[in-house]
Amino acid sequence: MKNALKIFACNSNDALASEICHRLGIPLSQLEISRFSNDNLHVQILENVRERDVFVVQSFTAPVSDHIMELLITLDALRSASAQRITAVIPYYSYARSDKKDKPRISITGRLMADMLVTAGANRVLTMDLHADQVHGFFSVPVDHLTSIPIITEHFRQHYDLSNMVAVATDAGGAKRVGRFSERLGIPMAIIDKRRISDTLVKQGQVVGEVSGRDAVIFEDEISTGGTLVSTIDTLRAAGARSIHAGAAHGVLCGPAIERLRDAPIDSIVVTNTVHVAPEKRLDKLTVLTTAPLLAAAIERIHSGASVGALFA
Amino acid sequence: MKNALKIFACNSNDALASEICHRLGIPLSQLEISRFSNDNLHVQILENVRERDVFVVQSFTAPVSDHIMELLITLDALRSASAQRITAVIPYYSYARSDKKDKPRISITGRLMADMLVTAGANRVLTMDLHADQVHGFFSVPVDHLTSIPIITEHFRQHYDLSNMVAVATDAGGAKRVGRFSERLGIPMAIIDKRRISDTLVKQGQVVGEVSGRDAVIFEDEISTGGTLVSTIDTLRAAGARSIHAGAAHGVLCGPAIERLRDAPIDSIVVTNTVHVAPEKRLDKLTVLTTAPLLAAAIERIHSGASVGALFA
Amino acid sequence: MKNALKIFACNSNDALASEICHRLGIPLSQLEISRFSNDNLHVQILENVRERDVFVVQSFTAPVSDHIMELLITLDALRSASAQRITAVIPYYSYARSDKKDKPRISITGRLMADMLVTAGANRVLTMDLHADQVHGFFSVPVDHLTSIPIITEHFRQHYDLSNMVAVATDAGGAKRVGRFSERLGIPMAIIDKRRISDTLVKQGQVVGEVSGRDAVIFEDEISTGGTLVSTIDTLRAAGARSIHAGAAHGVLCGPAIERLRDAPIDSIVVTNTVHVAPEKRLDKLTVLTTAPLLAAAIERIHSGASVGALFA
Amino acid sequence: MKNALKIFACNSNDALASEICHRLGIPLSQLEISRFSNDNLHVQILENVRERDVFVVQSFTAPVSDHIMELLITLDALRSASAQRITAVIPYYSYARSDKKDKPRISITGRLMADMLVTAGANRVLTMDLHADQVHGFFSVPVDHLTSIPIITEHFRQHYDLSNMVAVATDAGGAKRVGRFSERLGIPMAIIDKRRISDTLVKQGQVVGEVSGRDAVIFEDEISTGGTLVSTIDTLRAAGARSIHAGAAHGVLCGPAIERLRDAPIDSIVVTNTVHVAPEKRLDKLTVLTTAPLLAAAIERIHSGASVGALFA
Amino acid sequence: MKNALKIFACNSNDALASEICHRLGIPLSQLEISRFSNDNLHVQILENVRERDVFVVQSFTAPVSDHIMELLITLDALRSASAQRITAVIPYYSYARSDKKDKPRISITGRLMADMLVTAGANRVLTMDLHADQVHGFFSVPVDHLTSIPIITEHFRQHYDLSNMVAVATDAGGAKRVGRFSERLGIPMAIIDKRRISDTLVKQGQVVGEVSGRDAVIFEDEISTGGTLVSTIDTLRAAGARSIHAGAAHGVLCGPAIERLRDAPIDSIVVTNTVHVAPEKRLDKLTVLTTAPLLAAAIERIHSGASVGALFA
Amino acid sequence: MKNALKIFACNSNDALASEICHRLGIPLSQLEISRFSNDNLHVQILENVRERDVFVVQSFTAPVSDHIMELLITLDALRSASAQRITAVIPYYSYARSDKKDKPRISITGRLMADMLVTAGANRVLTMDLHADQVHGFFSVPVDHLTSIPIITEHFRQHYDLSNMVAVATDAGGAKRVGRFSERLGIPMAIIDKRRISDTLVKQGQVVGEVSGRDAVIFEDEISTGGTLVSTIDTLRAAGARSIHAGAAHGVLCGPAIERLRDAPIDSIVVTNTVHVAPEKRLDKLTVLTTAPLLAAAIERIHSGASVGALFA
Repeated sequence: MKNALKIFACNSNDALASEICHRLGIPLSQLEISRFSNDNLHVQILENVRERDVFVVQSFTAPVSDHIMELLITLDALRSASAQRITAVIPYYSYARSDKKDKPRISITGRLMADMLVTAGANRVLTMDLHADQVHGFFSVPVDHLTSIPIITEHFRQHYDLSNMVAVATDAGGAKRVGRFSERLGIPMAIIDKRRISDTLVKQGQVVGEVSGRDAVIFEDEISTGGTLVSTIDTLRAAGARSIHAGAAHGVLCGPAIERLRDAPIDSIVVTNTVHVAPEKRLDKLTVLTTAPLLAAAIERIHSGASVGALFA
Repeated sequence: MKNALKIFACNSNDALASEICHRLGIPLSQLEISRFSNDNLHVQILENVRERDVFVVQSFTAPVSDHIMELLITLDALRSASAQRITAVIPYYSYARSDKKDKPRISITGRLMADMLVTAGANRVLTMDLHADQVHGFFSVPVDHLTSIPIITEHFRQHYDLSNMVAVATDAGGAKRVGRFSERLGIPMAIIDKRRISDTLVKQGQVVGEVSGRDAVIFEDEISTGGTLVSTIDTLRAAGARSIHAGAAHGVLCGPAIERLRDAPIDSIVVTNTVHVAPEKRLDKLTVLTTAPLLAAAIERIHSGASVGALFA
Repeated sequence: MKNALKIFACNSNDALASEICHRLGIPLSQLEISRFSNDNLHVQILENVRERDVFVVQSFTAPVSDHIMELLITLDALRSASAQRITAVIPYYSYARSDKKDKPRISITGRLMADMLVTAGANRVLTMDLHADQVHGFFSVPVDHLTSIPIITEHFRQHYDLSNMVAVATDAGGAKRVGRFSERLGIPMAIIDKRRISDTLVKQGQVVGEVSGRDAVIFEDEISTGGTLVSTIDTLRAAGARSIHAGAAHGVLCGPAIERLRDAPIDSIVVTNTVHVAPEKRLDKLTVLTTAPLLAAAIERIHSGASVGALFA
Repeated sequence: MKNALKIFACNSNDALASEICHRLGIPLSQLEISRFSNDNLHVQILENVRERDVFVVQSFTAPVSDHIMELLITLDALRSASAQRITAVIPYYSYARSDKKDKPRISITGRLMADMLVTAGANRVLTMDLHADQVHGFFSVPVDHLTSIPIITEHFRQHYDLSNMVAVATDAGGAKRVGRFSERLGIPMAIIDKRRISDTLVKQGQVVGEVSGRDAVIFEDEISTGGTLVSTIDTLRAAGARSIHAGAAHGVLCGPAIERLRDAPIDSIVVTNTVHVAPEKRLDKLTVLTTAPLLAAAIERIHSGASVGALFA
Repeated sequence: MKNALKIFACNSNDALASEICHRLGIPLSQLEISRFSNDNLHVQILENVRERDVFVVQSFTAPVSDHIMELLITLDALRSASAQRITAVIPYYSYARSDKKDKPRISITGRLMADMLVTAGANRVLTMDLHADQVHGFFSVPVDHLTSIPIITEHFRQHYDLSNMVAVATDAGGAKRVGRFSERLGIPMAIIDKRRISDTLVKQGQVVGEVSGRDAVIFEDEISTGGTLVSTIDTLRAAGARSIHAGAAHGVLCGPAIERLRDAPIDSIVVTNTVHVAPEKRLDKLTVLTTAPLLAAAIERIHSGASVGALFA
Repeated sequence: MKNALKIFACNSNDALASEICHRLGIPLSQLEISRFSNDNLHVQILENVRERDVFVVQSFTAPVSDHIMELLITLDALRSASAQRITAVIPYYSYARSDKKDKPRISITGRLMADMLVTAGANRVLTMDLHADQVHGFFSVPVDHLTSIPIITEHFRQHYDLSNMVAVATDAGGAKRVGRFSERLGIPMAIIDKRRISDTLVKQGQVVGEVSGRDAVIFEDEISTGGTLVSTIDTLRAAGARSIHAGAAHGVLCGPAIERLRDAPIDSIVVTNTVHVAPEKRLDKLTVLTTAPLLAAAIERIHSGASVGALFA
């Protein structure tokens, strides 16, 4: 049984890990995460993993520090338990947003966490929809970086009338991602150009491009509190958009997000399950697409040595 | 101002850091720790640290994962801000308790965290009362490992009648620490020998040594929920101890600890401030000794190149 | 003389290095680069550098492989000659453009070169206007990443009428940079949205935003062959721009660039001297701004431990 | 023949290595260790090891420096000869005793040797009965840490009357080990509490616990010169022990050990063969138990990817 | 198809790589090397290499910097494309000549390049006829260091009358190599002893040993511009040599080499194809021996785990 | 006192270390090396070394393994005692002779020891007369490689008549060293060409060059048992040498060396004190030159940041 494939999950996204295992026809392997009275975490791998090809699924969702620590300790436990190869499967790598020094004396934490994962024992990483493509280069081990854009555009193609649609970036930094999305759908794009009005850092958005009378689809990498989304909806409404939709890879949907989205004049929202969307967060206008088939296919190919790039050809 | 000393503190123990700075006659340097909506932590160093000799104070108290992550990100920010040398000052290094593999397929997390600290940028470590002396060897950078035993024994010498006192270890693993403590006070020792009665892992303690009619002082490295302490008190009472006291370096005092200690037939408890003891946790019978003078002296000596060992000579 | 500052230059941009030294009031330190008959490079440092604080200036311009190899060998020679600290000053880090995997089985060479520099002996890096801010995170050593945007916007502010000007990004990927540029000048922005028309990868640009009747300034990180610039000029002309200008940090100006720019209907072009612009490349409509004062100030601050961020405050 | 198992031995314990091979039904692989006239060691591997799974058996016995150097050079030779995986099998890792800084400015040599082994090429380590469990954490590669306690307790169970027996630790530091030993045998424990009487560092032991009229078994990790054992015997005799026995994992038995044990009023001594006990050291009251079946089983399981933990379940 | 063998070639020596593949009966795997307008190199691996055992053939010939950079980028691309193992096959490792510090403040570039290769992703190296055997020790990964001396001596044995032949070293540094060569052929040796005449570094050679009336064969590791060869021919002619021949592993033959050799009074020259000898460089008196059978056999053995040393037994 | 210079010595060559300190006008710093009963070494640094610039003198003489281990443990103790910079001063680095793989499956131990020294904490190395110059490149830290050739040639210049002298290499491998020596003295050279006569590896020497009627000086890097020297003397006598002398950097003089040299028909022998020559080894015809002034000057320059190369200018 040397080289056999085993998949473990830490606490962030059991449902996704189970769905991946189901697709691959293997059981989810067992580990136990507990907490000592002094709040230290403790992980025990409950199955022999010697010489096995091991994957651990964990998204960096809240509580982020605990979830990262769980993953690091699990990686270390697997390494010291003599796993042959360990792949950290991180559908949502939230610290990818800390990818540059836009203020003095801060940490590029997306790089720091990459180094932590490798120090803890990750031999490779499988992740999705990093905030910027460059974050791939933060890792010193091989990374397979998947994208859910084809999953989301396929959904739009099947359920929407694209003839009058325009894709909208919430700021200049998102223009590239929206360019890729809109090109795939064959629709035009617009961006919200935000400016600092005064020293107090307030920013006001202005639409660059045509949205009046159109069906606007705001496309982002993640929706967290929904704040940006709501202010973009306002700007687009004011600019005369006919209907408004939103798409994003990562449905973080934290804090007031669900309430905001429920109340906002937005027609539909599409995210994937890289972040677990709890039942109480489900809205009628919210669609959650699954990434399990894609992740399962990638894991199978990584395990067997088949091309992962071919998944996108 | 190259080489100047700067001390920062993360969120776990501001009071101790401030007291250290006060002793050294320097202000506590400023950093800002915030949290993004997706629960990612963000640290900004608010002062120039180029070529400075920087110390960061942080204990691994609850919420442990957040506190460790704060420290790691702070270390990385300091390194990339070109600090000359960075010392992680960790008065309470809680993961030191995860120091061996007493079950299959677990992580020796005390070692993992040591590697994390170094990967994040720590050039050296200053810590106190590690659960086992061997944990010192987990670090690949120089460590100054201080002990509060002299502080605690000095307190006992000044406030207690030692003539009829016996020091008690709560299990065989603590015998060594209690031996050192009792030798310093010139009093005898005893240990509680705990045994598994059946497969269900229940353990019952039996006193090895003389405690009947004596003033017993239970000595540990940390008191967390107080569970071990309470059961030891029971055992000692049953064995005829005349009065019961407790001493420990780290007053973690979490969960039901304060309630338990309030109600337990124990005469006095002494801990240090390596872990911050909030005002609402203060009991009349609880004394909190300060480690600030010791830590301040060590920092001053590390900074100036004077012998730290000489502090204990 | 321990800790003294010394500046060396490899072969790519002697003029800039000399100007930096002139500003700092120190002579350019001497090294000798030669080539053996088997085409191997050879570097000899001609001055004692023991315990000195050494900076080496080299841009990654053509011939790029030779220039990188010169720098790597120089770093190694300095390290083994016992320099105290070695800073690679790379005004133009061309491989920053290889910052992601946009095709299967390629190298993120921007990261690879970062690792090479560190392996060869660089203790820190000083660079300018990286293609993407995230490339900063490719380095495992401290980086000071300067920007020439203030130098260029200051030039525009002094020599141009900004009242009717619009800043233009040549594609969605450049939107962020142009956003920063236009915000600083207080002018609106537009982007060229390029689309693949067929499988043969031809792209056609469409203007998103208002340029008709306006003075357009195309802003990029680098101008190499001028191909993108020329096609953007055509698009802007067709869209009714009144006048057209261009600004870029790095004036690579290779291949047919000068001829193209001479013949193109463009009113003015502004670049900096991070890449040396040979006299024969000088056009009347081309302005080359110097970065020497900025680099000199940064080097002086790195050397003395003063804040570099304060340069931009 | 890729992946095939090969076992080599350096000079410290040929007999044990041969016994392991015999159990596994494979020949001991051949290497040649010689010494140049300038006292440099030289190792040549005499068989092809490319892509083989190689184990090297060597205990850190006297002459310790030579034996360690032999192992380091052998590891390096194996690595550069392209072995697939190299496991250092170190039944007696003597430097484990240098596991903490109990004096200023010393080396934690147990950690240093761990780093040396990894630098020289060890991909994993198989060892037994480390002085402290924490030493496991000194290694940055996977370690299988076996214990001979079950072998020794099984021996006591079969050959001794346990009904009146008490296990004795020679000092507080050994209490934990003796606790584990006595719990396994279901007998009570006692410890010798040693105290410094004056500055001249003389220590006097006092028995904590009941030994009068009992059969005492002193349990240690190693017996070297026998000095501690002899003084403990004296203390126990004075305290009224009925008979005295000793058990230890590592029978180092150096210097005056054999003479001392022969003459001492001790009834029996049990050690294992992690250290080779030469024929001239054999006493009637000394029993040497073999660890070969345990080590052979562990090697077989490491090689095949079966659980090593299951050996102890 | 995991573990399958794949061979790639960068641009330096396609012919040799193809010949190796032909011998092994496998096709040469495909990659594409291109150059961006800013002179940056770009490599794409055109076949899936996941879990494959990959070899890349590249000699360090002119343009050396480009060829090294091609190799480094290819190694990085292969690693990040998840190749199982990557062997850099470098028939001519030219920087081996930079193997010591014979002037102050220079780089031992032979070591630097070894570190670069490992940093870029090489897991092992296969090379030939290093300038000094010690260069092998510059690598931190396993190296197979082949020699073409048997190929060349076999050629001399078959095509020359050895009875009156003497092998000549062009300076004292080459004596060892010539000793090995001459011993294999059973002929005597001589060396040219070169001395500095004055400070201006001119050196004059004097023959140590007997060459008068003999057939002299000058033996070197490489022939680059032929300058040394020509001056040695003069010295030997003056000393009365009857005929003159030359042998070398690496026929770099750069600059004026071909012209010089054509015109020089030398009877024959023998080199191997570790460096590609272009058709226009072919002279009647120049013989190029192939190393492809040797390299193919070594690759096959490295791949299958058979002994490479046995090739020379 | 930060940055102050401190010199320590391990057990191999106290006399040389003391002489160096005497020259520098500082006391030899104190450490204590002891041996536990289980033959483990123990080192304690007896002075505060925080932030000091520390040098440790140790030659790799017999017992080599103990002397290397002493040095490694001392380096580790110094590092963990927070020395600012640690230089290993190794006047005789004996493992430099293990510098290549001249047999299959051996270790290049000269490289392995270099890695060990760095792993143990050496920040730099100061050594003398390495067996081959290339060994310098085995180190990943800066090395100052001194030579005693000027010391030895100066001695010959002052005490010998050079007019009829010839320098002799004992084999082809030593030709380069002898070339350098003879050029410095302005005398001719010869080499002993040794050949394997049969498979049983016996070699017979033949003189290449003129020695008849001349004063021959055999020059080597080290004299160990004197075996090579004695056979070379025989060969030279047979070839008609008028008188015979020997010079070498390292007077290892082990085993039968002294007896052999006493009895051999050799007129004088000159070595240096990189290896301690015990009083009982002193012969009338043996001169031991001191390297202390050279080492002291180098240490002073390394400490102060002055050029070491200038010592040889």
